[in-house]
Amino acid sequence: MIKVGIIGATGYAGGELVRILANHKAAEIIWYGSKSYIDKKYSEVYRNMFRIVEGVCRDDDLNELAGQVDVIFTATPQGFLAGLLNEEILSKVKLVDLSADYRIKNAGVYERWYGIEHKSPQFIDEAVYGLCEINRGKITERTRLVANPGCYTTCSILTAYPMVKEGLIDVDTLIVDAKSGTSGAGRGAKVQNLFCEVNENMKAYGVATHRHTPEIEEQLGYAAGREVTINFTPHLVPMNRGILVTEYASLKRKQDGSLPSYEEIKAVYDKYYGSERFVRVLERGECPETKWVEGSNYVDINFVPDERTGRIIMMGALDNLVKGAAGQAVQNMNLLFGLPEDEGLELVPCFP
Amino acid sequence: MIKVGIIGATGYAGGELVRILANHKAAEIIWYGSKSYIDKKYSEVYRNMFRIVEGVCRDDDLNELAGQVDVIFTATPQGFLAGLLNEEILSKVKLVDLSADYRIKNAGVYERWYGIEHKSPQFIDEAVYGLCEINRGKITERTRLVANPGCYTTCSILTAYPMVKEGLIDVDTLIVDAKSGTSGAGRGAKVQNLFCEVNENMKAYGVATHRHTPEIEEQLGYAAGREVTINFTPHLVPMNRGILVTEYASLKRKQDGSLPSYEEIKAVYDKYYGSERFVRVLERGECPETKWVEGSNYVDINFVPDERTGRIIMMGALDNLVKGAAGQAVQNMNLLFGLPEDEGLELVPCFP
Amino acid sequence: MIKVGIIGATGYAGGELVRILANHKAAEIIWYGSKSYIDKKYSEVYRNMFRIVEGVCRDDDLNELAGQVDVIFTATPQGFLAGLLNEEILSKVKLVDLSADYRIKNAGVYERWYGIEHKSPQFIDEAVYGLCEINRGKITERTRLVANPGCYTTCSILTAYPMVKEGLIDVDTLIVDAKSGTSGAGRGAKVQNLFCEVNENMKAYGVATHRHTPEIEEQLGYAAGREVTINFTPHLVPMNRGILVTEYASLKRKQDGSLPSYEEIKAVYDKYYGSERFVRVLERGECPETKWVEGSNYVDINFVPDERTGRIIMMGALDNLVKGAAGQAVQNMNLLFGLPEDEGLELVPCFP
Amino acid sequence: MIKVGIIGATGYAGGELVRILANHKAAEIIWYGSKSYIDKKYSEVYRNMFRIVEGVCRDDDLNELAGQVDVIFTATPQGFLAGLLNEEILSKVKLVDLSADYRIKNAGVYERWYGIEHKSPQFIDEAVYGLCEINRGKITERTRLVANPGCYTTCSILTAYPMVKEGLIDVDTLIVDAKSGTSGAGRGAKVQNLFCEVNENMKAYGVATHRHTPEIEEQLGYAAGREVTINFTPHLVPMNRGILVTEYASLKRKQDGSLPSYEEIKAVYDKYYGSERFVRVLERGECPETKWVEGSNYVDINFVPDERTGRIIMMGALDNLVKGAAGQAVQNMNLLFGLPEDEGLELVPCFP
Repeated sequence: MIKVGIIGATGYAGGELVRILANHKAAEIIWYGSKSYIDKKYSEVYRNMFRIVEGVCRDDDLNELAGQVDVIFTATPQGFLAGLLNEEILSKVKLVDLSADYRIKNAGVYERWYGIEHKSPQFIDEAVYGLCEINRGKITERTRLVANPGCYTTCSILTAYPMVKEGLIDVDTLIVDAKSGTSGAGRGAKVQNLFCEVNENMKAYGVATHRHTPEIEEQLGYAAGREVTINFTPHLVPMNRGILVTEYASLKRKQDGSLPSYEEIKAVYDKYYGSERFVRVLERGECPETKWVEGSNYVDINFVPDERTGRIIMMGALDNLVKGAAGQAVQNMNLLFGLPEDEGLELVPCFP
Repeated sequence: MIKVGIIGATGYAGGELVRILANHKAAEIIWYGSKSYIDKKYSEVYRNMFRIVEGVCRDDDLNELAGQVDVIFTATPQGFLAGLLNEEILSKVKLVDLSADYRIKNAGVYERWYGIEHKSPQFIDEAVYGLCEINRGKITERTRLVANPGCYTTCSILTAYPMVKEGLIDVDTLIVDAKSGTSGAGRGAKVQNLFCEVNENMKAYGVATHRHTPEIEEQLGYAAGREVTINFTPHLVPMNRGILVTEYASLKRKQDGSLPSYEEIKAVYDKYYGSERFVRVLERGECPETKWVEGSNYVDINFVPDERTGRIIMMGALDNLVKGAAGQAVQNMNLLFGLPEDEGLELVPCFP
Repeated sequence: MIKVGIIGATGYAGGELVRILANHKAAEIIWYGSKSYIDKKYSEVYRNMFRIVEGVCRDDDLNELAGQVDVIFTATPQGFLAGLLNEEILSKVKLVDLSADYRIKNAGVYERWYGIEHKSPQFIDEAVYGLCEINRGKITERTRLVANPGCYTTCSILTAYPMVKEGLIDVDTLIVDAKSGTSGAGRGAKVQNLFCEVNENMKAYGVATHRHTPEIEEQLGYAAGREVTINFTPHLVPMNRGILVTEYASLKRKQDGSLPSYEEIKAVYDKYYGSERFVRVLERGECPETKWVEGSNYVDINFVPDERTGRIIMMGALDNLVKGAAGQAVQNMNLLFGLPEDEGLELVPCFP
Repeated sequence: MIKVGIIGATGYAGGELVRILANHKAAEIIWYGSKSYIDKKYSEVYRNMFRIVEGVCRDDDLNELAGQVDVIFTATPQGFLAGLLNEEILSKVKLVDLSADYRIKNAGVYERWYGIEHKSPQFIDEAVYGLCEINRGKITERTRLVANPGCYTTCSILTAYPMVKEGLIDVDTLIVDAKSGTSGAGRGAKVQNLFCEVNENMKAYGVATHRHTPEIEEQLGYAAGREVTINFTPHLVPMNRGILVTEYASLKRKQDGSLPSYEEIKAVYDKYYGSERFVRVLERGECPETKWVEGSNYVDINFVPDERTGRIIMMGALDNLVKGAAGQAVQNMNLLFGLPEDEGLELVPCFP
């Protein structure tokens, strides 16, 4: 039995880790870290867990925790893990960090977009970017530190990846218009996230400045083999869960001047995702809906090539708390410990 | 492996049966009955099931089906099963009926409230009312026909049952004010259930005439040992899932004229539900919230005795598609086949 | 032109006052009091008011304000006005208080339910309870202090008033089950009011202890001519605006033992509300829906007598921010200044 | 008093016309056309109008109606008006058509995108495209036929118009990602628009094929002085009202190679909208929110130039039933009859 500790167990992503691990056959949580609720029963914070979770919230002492568990999930604010991580901790325990601290290889880029100093850049190189479908090979039993990707990022990258990797689109034209449910904003008590402010409302935010931008650019840059600069615009939508991305890019014309056909593009998507457990490329004509993946670890993807404009419209949908956070974190844990990749993740989407 | 057939597999309750059974270790669906979508892939009707369910929708031929499966779930309109059931079918297969056809022992009462003739009253006596927590003993491997309780009914009865059974309240004063999410209204294309008609809106309906009334009255009547007449008022709430009932009744005073204390009442609830897998009597002061049970088979219950008025306010919450329909149906199936009662029902409530 | 000052202009009720008064022909706001946003443009707090309201938020100095305006609306926490009010202020300006400070005639009852000391009980007697349809005669140009009723209270009282006043029900059996949209919870940044906590969720709260209870009891007591004790249970519903109450009471039988008929009861409702501008008694069989009154000052009411149980089920719906707060406050202002009662209140309900 | 007839008065756009005209001082509705509800009281179809509208629904006889009113609003399916319009009708009455029949000057384009034959192309030339802020000069008292713009179209065009007109962007790079509340889908009883299908869900639809595309292209083509081809992607969002568009285009560099500054772009927007009653260009850094315009005739617009990518992100928000349909139709009526443009449209946005 893998012993699990969670730091930040009472945020929404932490709560989702608890939900998923409750049915995981090979792992058990023994530390519910939550600075805000120390000594309170976990099920008093999340009443849905009454009689399911018996644990009590504990402090977020990373050093102590490292000696007691096999893996630590940090679902904490940016800078938290970077400020505490050291070689001793890493020598004792595996870490799956749900924050952005080790996602970006260039500490300067991190510091510019996040506006904070990176306190332990020496571990960035070692960290593996935990987008399982792309980096599966690197997430092995020898890996000590996984940087779990962001919610917007996971969806944005996976939706465009095959097209970028195969060079079918002009990456300089890539635009990502993303829409997210409100759980992505976290459980902090802010006026802007009150029910009455979000409900029956919609807006863009962080236009041209959102922190997931460089993360998407870096990963798509690896796929493209060169630097990529994109527009990424997130929007807040009045629903609890779900991210939908709509991506636009100019298709490269073939030598005969024609655009790649639907079938040719489909073959490219199938090449990358045809045997993936958690990526579903939909049937022709279907647009992904967030409800179809709710509560599950799936990403649903589809695309429409547009002869009129020469562009492709790519769409992706996932549950921001599952494949966009806790689900992918568990998927990474499974890889780290050599378990079946979908252990604990056989979650069937819940409709309606 | 138990072979399962579903008639009405593309309604919301049918869809939930499919979701739950997808992770059931001892049962597999081999017939997805849906008159409206014959020959269409099930996953084209419910896209969330893409690559999870491979089956194709088939006609609702009960006779043919009876020869192929071990148990049939009928998630069909009132009158459907009553119009088709016969001894031959019952001799071949077990039936769990999610409609009201066999819930009410008095066919006249059924006909009056439902406004249709009962076509096979000869099977009413045999049918067992499948409220597992109360009738568990009767739902055995010899039972052939289970009348799965209604969603409002399950919640309303379980919330008041211990008080009625132990004679702590004056049942003639019982009032049930119930609120339901919109999935209870079904998947039929009606103007009144359009998003824009339901969203940001709330109303009572079926006031003094709702069909779940006699079902509640009959079952509480058994508990009380005499006829019970209540007021039951359902309301439509702008959310997908969840039923909340708020029940009012006058407490009987003890011989010394005092009201029963919180502790005395709590002991009564614990007597009935203390070891129940799916009923959670909350801690003092907590009011049940539908979100705490969403997606799971739990019923959350609590109560407040009010010294000022001498009444008790009892509250219960469940997911109308799970414990209020498909979950309880699977719970009944588990009992019918001697499986662990929670097989396939280890569903953790999903929050947020 | 009536000069208006608002204390608490940036809460939801204050914001609604601003919305309504923007189209009021005889009144203009000259003071937007908001301690939290002093010196900030009002339209920066409520962006919907961009280019409609030019004012800047100011401190909540009641003394200074009293010298500058004709009427002050206080949309402030309980205890605020009671702590500041004095004879000098009252001699200069009319006050419409949207808090509970002067609603309850018995200061002891106020202190018990609200848990705070009443700092100026000497003004309680003078205050007129501003439920216009019932106390219209008392709200005259000589009145200085109006206690604007609570949102739940307005709806609960008006729905039952004719029945209580005419003695058609046994008031000891009266139960009020109330459901409210979330704007009633105010604009404070609390976790429990976050979108993800409220959305897709429903719960009762303040069971047997909610502060609107004694206010309802007092007013219905005047109607009944004796003390009234009721159960009042509020519920939180995932929508922005709207209160729906469902009330239950035993009908008194007539001398011949029969229950009053629908027509007899309807005549009683028409007697009280037939010529009321803002109370609509619906047609037989219609249940009030909150959406039908959204954004308007209407209260929609209807009832169903139930022969089976001898009870009547009464239902009422209003917009908690309009008739339940700011609309009724403006209605009171109109009465105080001898204006047409519906000036500024010709708001047509917005659907969908 | 202008006599008004509405054909299609019981759809959502028709209902909004009724709501707005209820407070219009110079117009009165004398014909509520609704084929589906002939002889039914209008307030029985829309209960919010109880005691506000006394009219009865009537047939949609355009010829008869033309003799009785001064202006007809047709809120009808595509093809309806084109199939009935003739010179006699036009000689008697002014027409504001909320359908697409006369919006597109090229009948072939209309037929291709809408898939129906245009039955009266002879009137297309005469029709004025009623986007008031752009075509105000053409909507005069001599105009007989106004083609009221689509909801997505109004928002999409107004958001980009100054940039296109002044040649500041490369129109070939323009991408419009649009999000709409569900009232835009109409009041038809379709499964896909049921509450449970839309709520907690989001999707794109009509990708690369939506009918508002050629309308946007035509109007922006006039502004650009040449043909324009764009990508337009609509999305369905779980809220009743509101459209938000996010538009992307490459900024043209100035002769010195630099991008136009925020101030330069702002000056362009102010040039076109600075004195517009219903267009609000927001302050720097503010992103439009649909809630800030709900229930009103405003369009809120803002933009962010992005140095990194050389693009501009433009955003616009409106209420699809008001500025996107009925409000603009009334604005057009006001222009047609020489009334103040905002008569009846002094609607203050409702928040929350």
